[in-house]
Formats: sequence, structure tokens, C-alpha cells
Amino acid sequence: MDSEKRISPAVINRLPRYYRYLGDLLESDITRISSKELSAKMNITASQIRQDLNNFGGFGQQGYGYNVEYLHNEIKKILGLDRLYNMIVVGGGNIGQALVNYTNFEKRGFVIKAVFDINPRIIGMTIRGVEVHDVDKMEEYIKNNSIDVAILTLPRSKAVKVANDLAKWGVKGMWNFSHVDLQVPEDVLVENVHLTDSLMTLLYKINEMYSEESELHHLANGLPIKPIVDLED
Amino acid sequence: MDSEKRISPAVINRLPRYYRYLGDLLESDITRISSKELSAKMNITASQIRQDLNNFGGFGQQGYGYNVEYLHNEIKKILGLDRLYNMIVVGGGNIGQALVNYTNFEKRGFVIKAVFDINPRIIGMTIRGVEVHDVDKMEEYIKNNSIDVAILTLPRSKAVKVANDLAKWGVKGMWNFSHVDLQVPEDVLVENVHLTDSLMTLLYKINEMYSEESELHHLANGLPIKPIVDLED
Repeated sequence: MDSEKRISPAVINRLPRYYRYLGDLLESDITRISSKELSAKMNITASQIRQDLNNFGGFGQQGYGYNVEYLHNEIKKILGLDRLYNMIVVGGGNIGQALVNYTNFEKRGFVIKAVFDINPRIIGMTIRGVEVHDVDKMEEYIKNNSIDVAILTLPRSKAVKVANDLAKWGVKGMWNFSHVDLQVPEDVLVENVHLTDSLMTLLYKINEMYSEESELHHLANGLPIKPIVDLED
Repeated sequence: MDSEKRISPAVINRLPRYYRYLGDLLESDITRISSKELSAKMNITASQIRQDLNNFGGFGQQGYGYNVEYLHNEIKKILGLDRLYNMIVVGGGNIGQALVNYTNFEKRGFVIKAVFDINPRIIGMTIRGVEVHDVDKMEEYIKNNSIDVAILTLPRSKAVKVANDLAKWGVKGMWNFSHVDLQVPEDVLVENVHLTDSLMTLLYKINEMYSEESELHHLANGLPIKPIVDLED
């Protein structure tokens, strides 16, 4: 394939899901699968799947389908999951601690090396063997340990400044749980997990589908209805 | 506006972000803002903002801009944030506990009423005043308390079956942290928070931007480069 080919963000965002499904297939000792079968499982059209996987040279064969293990390995390489990543957690609160306690990360090569916080009550403690350091030690720590990713789970009021410092100190990626949008240099990658935004989106959909008016409509034709916005009420 | 007008998912997904920024403006006693100013803050084009907000009848006025409080309230209504939502957490592990401890939810009217788990060691405990119940009591609980949303933070192996039960018992929405895609009836809304997928997407982007080849390219033109996929290596 054209090595300069660019992959659309939409496809990139679907890759982890492909990787997850292919991993499940491997665990069930399924060695090959057609785009049609994969389509049924993943609930994406078969043509979409073929299109997506064509981005990577397309590993499918007419009548044979995809070699699950090969495809899984290729996507693993494409996602860069064939190496280890050093991560730190900035903010030792509930979410930060939950992430440190999430053992699946290590299995995948996502290694949380340290936690940083300003709270003297938790500095010096360890969470599942990972030490909580004073945030004042963070610059030195990052410079002495090659840290790929900072997981930001600190109050939004502090997140923007901290993210800028981290970028200055050479952190390449921010996984941002702080409920604020970061302003970092273009060459620093950010992935936001704004939990409240996600919940609000869900509530919007529920509210629209089950609003009184919609409910009647819903019962009338027995079908879920599309969101309706009516500012008149 | 046409009350049957449908709002694209992309716009719906941006609404919580508008709501967040408008809330910040209110806190800073800013009463009105132009699409241009909002554009600079949110890093969305002004025309995109005008387009998005036009979905709701457009509250902007030439030369005046948007009335922040009015717009904030309208979006609040549109998002259905002018009421309370009863939620339960299914799975009292790290993430589940972190969410129960996240006090901001209550401030917004997202009320976690109970946690359910199978682990006898935590059943009967309370997390910030929220009791952990035996999962066997869940059906009865849901039927006696009108539960809008179930937050799924349980092992993927169990999530699919539990989600189906919850749907049967009348739960309208699932906020799914379990690392699996749910299969629920069309009239049950699901919002996935697949943390590992999100982290993988970030690592992909880092890996591509900072891969050796890219790094040279990167240094050469001093610009962040788009992801390059090369299966030849």
C-alpha cells in the first residue's frame, strides 16, 4: 500500500474495537472470519469493514476471509501495542486511584510508573505498589524517566497549567479526565475522557426518546423515535 | 423552528461542551458573547457555532451576540438537565466506587441511588452513603425505584447478560464502562466509555507522530505530521 496513505480519524477510532473483537475470536480459537461474520458481531456493515481494513493493505481473501491472528497482530502493530508505554497519573483522587488499580492496563503494556498529587495525606503512600509523589517532584521525575503519557485526573482549575508544564517537560500524550479542554502544542496528543459530557449525551437521548410527547409517538408505532427538539414548551 | 427537526449526533455530542463553556462564562459574570469570542475559546469555527446553535432556533442577535444565561438555560433544558435522574451502579469495583465518590454528579441532578455487586465482602457496605446491595436484589429494587440509568462497571463477561436483564426491568439507559459492546433493544440508549479503546487511540497517535521515521520528518519541517502507516517494516 501507499505508505503515505493517511487514515481517517474515524477509522483510527474504530481500530481498538476491531482489535478487541479479533482478540475475542482468538480466545475462542477462531482462526479466520469473513467480513460478513465480523459485520454481524460488530454491527458494522461488511463493506465498511472491508473499507476500514483496506487501509492497512487489506488482509482479506475472497472466499477465505480474514486470518484472525494475522489481522490481530497487524492491528496490534499499527496501534503500537507491541511496545511498553510509561505513564504517570497526575491527581491521586478517586478516578486516578481507580486507574492505577486497573490491572488490565499492565497486561497490555500500559505501565503506570508513578502518581503525583499535592495532598500531603496521600504523598508517600503506594497504590497497588505505585508510589504517590509530591507534584513538586514531577519535572525531575519526567526528565529522569521517559514518560510517554500523563493521565490527568486533577481538578479542572489546575489541569490546563499542569498540562502545559508536562508538555514543556516532554510528555508526548495526555489522557485527559479533567473536565476541561487543554491547550497544548500541536505536537502533544490529547485524548479527552470527559465523563460528565458522555453522561449528558446519554441523558439527552433518554430524555428525548422518553419525553411525554415522544412516549406517545413511541407507543403509537412501537418504534424508537429520533430526538425531537421543541423549544415551544 | 420546525419541532420535527432532527439534530445530528455530532451536534448532540457537542452540546455538553457548549453547556460547560457557557457555565464557565456565567461563573465569570459574562452575560453575552459573540460566536467569534466563543469560537476562540472553544476552538470551533464561529460559523460552526452559529450552525450548531441554529438547531435550537438560534439565540444569537446581530451585533449583540448570544445571551449567555438564556443560552445556558435553553441548552440545559434541551439536554434534560432541568430534572433529576436516578442511577444505579452495577459493579462495585474501582471505577464504580470512583463514580459514586464523584460528587459533581449530584450537583447536576445525576443521583446514584444504589450500587449492586456479587461480592459478599462489600455487600452491605456504603460508599459515601450509597449502599452496596446484592445483585440478586436488583430486579426488585429497579421495579420499586424508578431508575433511569444503570452505570455498568462490571466484568465484560457478565455485562451483556446483565444489560439485557436491566432492559427487561425497564432501565432506559446504560452508561457502559464494561469493555464490551452491549446488545440491547432499540429503545434502550447506550453510551459507551471504553477506557482502553480511548487510551489505545491516544497511543496510536503518539506512536505515529513519534515513530522514528515520523520523528525525522517531524524535525525536518518542524510540523506535527499526520499518521503514516507502513506495513513494510
